[in-house]
Amino acid sequence: MPLWHIYHPVGAYSDQDKQDFARDITKIYTNIGLPDFYVVALFHEISESSFFIGGEPTGNTVRVVVEHIARHTQDPHLRRRMTEKLNAVMLPYTRDRGLHWEFHIDETPQDLWMIAGLWPPASGSETEQTWARENEPTPY
Amino acid sequence: MPLWHIYHPVGAYSDQDKQDFARDITKIYTNIGLPDFYVVALFHEISESSFFIGGEPTGNTVRVVVEHIARHTQDPHLRRRMTEKLNAVMLPYTRDRGLHWEFHIDETPQDLWMIAGLWPPASGSETEQTWARENEPTPY
Amino acid sequence: MPLWHIYHPVGAYSDQDKQDFARDITKIYTNIGLPDFYVVALFHEISESSFFIGGEPTGNTVRVVVEHIARHTQDPHLRRRMTEKLNAVMLPYTRDRGLHWEFHIDETPQDLWMIAGLWPPASGSETEQTWARENEPTPY
Repeated sequence: MPLWHIYHPVGAYSDQDKQDFARDITKIYTNIGLPDFYVVALFHEISESSFFIGGEPTGNTVRVVVEHIARHTQDPHLRRRMTEKLNAVMLPYTRDRGLHWEFHIDETPQDLWMIAGLWPPASGSETEQTWARENEPTPY
Repeated sequence: MPLWHIYHPVGAYSDQDKQDFARDITKIYTNIGLPDFYVVALFHEISESSFFIGGEPTGNTVRVVVEHIARHTQDPHLRRRMTEKLNAVMLPYTRDRGLHWEFHIDETPQDLWMIAGLWPPASGSETEQTWARENEPTPY
Repeated sequence: MPLWHIYHPVGAYSDQDKQDFARDITKIYTNIGLPDFYVVALFHEISESSFFIGGEPTGNTVRVVVEHIARHTQDPHLRRRMTEKLNAVMLPYTRDRGLHWEFHIDETPQDLWMIAGLWPPASGSETEQTWARENEPTPY
């Protein structure tokens, strides 16, 4: 967690584009202290004949689904700011290329998540900081 | 939103079938006033060797995942009717072709969703009606 | 339900591996009385240039997303044990092959789910037992 699914038109992104996009996504989370390896991004190329918006085939839409762990904060202002930050990261890969884009974030239960057979440490804990520093899920 | 993922056997649908299916899906939502462009449908062809039901490969199953915004109504009767309406739309593309089908709807947070860099207008608002009429997310 | 999405590197699994993995997944649920056909597993092969962890392409990560019906029990101990059981099933297909793995479980609403046009019977009901015995969603 987080997990990003990026559904995009055929040929919309070069390998370099995808790497750049994935790095920009990753920075959102490492900036707030999460380990790099928490951030997974999957690019799914969808052909125009399988990608529909409003019932019509589309070759210029990017649909992003983001899965986050449900955090404790329910502060509406912070949730808004976070969502806008995600949108900002997408702009160079969508709006600036003339592509339409839409995304939503789902929140999934914190207690039903494991990495490499381990329970991820508490948010902000010393162990989480160690994982972030070493970029590895070391047993604790 | 809504977002439909349709996982289907190889060759189950022609391009025309997919377009028809996507249009039928779209009508569910435009009939209740949502803009056409809110409705995204993605068809994912899954080969028999990657599609398992009960631990056995399947070449005749359609598995649909629908993502909805969590609306305020929790009325059990309305939820039931809505789910049955979705099922009815699938019948010509599943049951009537001898395909097994299963679907579920997930509900995701309303406040973590943006389209083309904009916050979607309130449900039933004048702006939503404008978006529906123009079939475009115009700034407001 | 349950639905497993297994995002894996190209060539990580043979057809036999996938079948074995899907059967092991299925047993988790049939052991607690669910019908075999409730369990759907989809394998999604993701090329290294589309699979990123921490902003870097990865060719040795398996990311699993599991979708469960939200059950009534919220017992933290049972949820923990269930999650660890899922992890255990993945080990021969991840850790034991030198692959990194991560998974999370999402919980979706029980009342927004249908199989073959039918409402699944109540958990533990006689009808559910019939469905399990016959491995078929017979009308009731």
